[in-house]
Amino acid sequence: MWSQFTMAISPDARVSPQARVAPDADIGPFSIVHGSTVIGPGARIGSHCELGHAAPDGDQSVLVIGARALIRSHSVLYAGSSIGDDFETGHRVTVRERTRVGLGVRIGTSSDVQGDCVLEDYVRLHSGVFVAKLCAVRQFAWLMPNVTLTNDPTPPSENLRGCEVGERAVVAAGALVLPGVTIGADALVGAKACVGIDVPPGMVALGVPARITGKASGVRLRADDPQAAYPWIGHFHRGYPQDVVESWKRKPNEPERSDVP
Amino acid sequence: MWSQFTMAISPDARVSPQARVAPDADIGPFSIVHGSTVIGPGARIGSHCELGHAAPDGDQSVLVIGARALIRSHSVLYAGSSIGDDFETGHRVTVRERTRVGLGVRIGTSSDVQGDCVLEDYVRLHSGVFVAKLCAVRQFAWLMPNVTLTNDPTPPSENLRGCEVGERAVVAAGALVLPGVTIGADALVGAKACVGIDVPPGMVALGVPARITGKASGVRLRADDPQAAYPWIGHFHRGYPQDVVESWKRKPNEPERSDVP
Amino acid sequence: MWSQFTMAISPDARVSPQARVAPDADIGPFSIVHGSTVIGPGARIGSHCELGHAAPDGDQSVLVIGARALIRSHSVLYAGSSIGDDFETGHRVTVRERTRVGLGVRIGTSSDVQGDCVLEDYVRLHSGVFVAKLCAVRQFAWLMPNVTLTNDPTPPSENLRGCEVGERAVVAAGALVLPGVTIGADALVGAKACVGIDVPPGMVALGVPARITGKASGVRLRADDPQAAYPWIGHFHRGYPQDVVESWKRKPNEPERSDVP
Repeated sequence: MWSQFTMAISPDARVSPQARVAPDADIGPFSIVHGSTVIGPGARIGSHCELGHAAPDGDQSVLVIGARALIRSHSVLYAGSSIGDDFETGHRVTVRERTRVGLGVRIGTSSDVQGDCVLEDYVRLHSGVFVAKLCAVRQFAWLMPNVTLTNDPTPPSENLRGCEVGERAVVAAGALVLPGVTIGADALVGAKACVGIDVPPGMVALGVPARITGKASGVRLRADDPQAAYPWIGHFHRGYPQDVVESWKRKPNEPERSDVP
Repeated sequence: MWSQFTMAISPDARVSPQARVAPDADIGPFSIVHGSTVIGPGARIGSHCELGHAAPDGDQSVLVIGARALIRSHSVLYAGSSIGDDFETGHRVTVRERTRVGLGVRIGTSSDVQGDCVLEDYVRLHSGVFVAKLCAVRQFAWLMPNVTLTNDPTPPSENLRGCEVGERAVVAAGALVLPGVTIGADALVGAKACVGIDVPPGMVALGVPARITGKASGVRLRADDPQAAYPWIGHFHRGYPQDVVESWKRKPNEPERSDVP
Repeated sequence: MWSQFTMAISPDARVSPQARVAPDADIGPFSIVHGSTVIGPGARIGSHCELGHAAPDGDQSVLVIGARALIRSHSVLYAGSSIGDDFETGHRVTVRERTRVGLGVRIGTSSDVQGDCVLEDYVRLHSGVFVAKLCAVRQFAWLMPNVTLTNDPTPPSENLRGCEVGERAVVAAGALVLPGVTIGADALVGAKACVGIDVPPGMVALGVPARITGKASGVRLRADDPQAAYPWIGHFHRGYPQDVVESWKRKPNEPERSDVP
């Protein structure tokens, strides 16, 4: 099943004989795959990437990348992280050691995910997002361009506390979440907000410092449109698998379609 | 006129035989030029670049780069965009598909210009600027370091509305412009502002959320100097062609020098 | 002592015969070392870097990198800067021309240090930091993720005034310091602050625009912990040499241990 060198590896790529690369994976010119790397079937790795970069703390565990990954140029993924199927990145993405990335996650250009983070299934990070060590982003959450998640209440210190962004929550462009803060499920953080308080599920937080200003369900898609913008799963489905979208359309207590007689 | 391989192409560059590269263009080591690329005379392309990267939506149109481009290392320019003469970038710049870039535009290190944008003649983007899809920056406008232009009022949605920065307007460092907002010609947005309202021509907007605080023409170059800092074309000419600077010095209704008998 | 090519230089690196590289230095694949570069003993240069990049203003002076540098992939360092021993960078770091970097400095991933800057001994820049031309960061100071130091009070202009961050001062994530501002020694700037006033030594500045809100020594490490978080040298020692930490433990007028009979 696994092969070290295939036709789809550019002659200008450098792939360690110890790396385990699926035979149908593409690896672009001037990319480097270190020995501590496992790349699943159907992967497309762009140019100028470095996969399986050694962790600075000497962690010897491998980088595992699932099936059908699309990793764009100049990205650097460290050894010791595990990444689910259908992973997609922009250019120049960094993912450090011991980060767990779920299914169908997308990370935008120039985003930097530090070590020991969790990005659950179908999380979306747009461009320029910074995720500090120990932060967790729950499934279907969105971090828009230039969002910053932090972890040190009194920098510099050894007293790190990651923050958490809940399921389907949205943090708008340029916002920053302070250490230890929890953004609740289906919550909305406004652009440029600096969030130092927990945001309850389904609520909106705005400003510097951020205050709770109302319910996300009160935000309309357009001024002249009565449709609620949140929860966004009611109207935005692009890029998600059909079965995921179907699950969103069911009411909470409704059984899965396959269970219906 | 056009040639595929010249002496000035590094032996460590990879240039598609389908690419049309001016015979005097330099292409640095470890750079990649895909077939869907046209590079004009006098271009200097640094190392580790990727030009003509395929658009994810399958758009087959080419990347056209005008004369005398200076593209620094690790930059990625997509197929489907057109870029005028005398283009200059810093390092690690991204320009996505179907963006129209005018004459003499400069884009700083680590800036990320998404698809379907317009950057008119002599626009200046400093380092770390993010321009979302569908945004337009009019001629001579400046976006200072880490400025963010956004396009989605209720992220995530399909309801995108780009914002617009007017002619000669200046958006200072770290500011963010909300979707659909228009910054008027000769306006000034202060550092770190979050702009959710249209800024009339020639006015200053400051704060989070930004408010209109006065006229840009009331800002002085120095506390002890009566010279107005804005419009900046009255005192700042570095990097612009002589004919452009001459046009700034003429009064609005004065004819061009060549028309004077 | 100096040798141009050693076993530790990757065959896929391109090192100018004019460069002076210590014989035990490692240089990674697809990295470029221009002639105007001096690399000290024990250096480890990652992949896809470019060292000694020509300054755009034609400055012909060399790039000097001290002993034991660790420069991670995709970084670009310009000719004309001098860098002390034990330098360490993340990925995709840029340091422009005529910048003076002291001993033991660390610069995080995607940080961009423009020309004519000073980073004194043991300065720490985290990820995504932007340092404009003419800025100075004094010894032991910290700039946390996505901090921006600016230099132009009325952009664009020729009237540049760098800002200064004092010894052991900390600028928290996402903050911006306006041109000409001085952050005093041992001061603390809060996350997302926009600092337009000088911050006296040992004081805290918060908000947009930033106001002085109290003494840094009043900030506790934890709510239930009486230990002061600042000055941070009282509790945080990771990554500093033993002699430096010892010097912090002495009281201001206490002599060095070697001087004690």
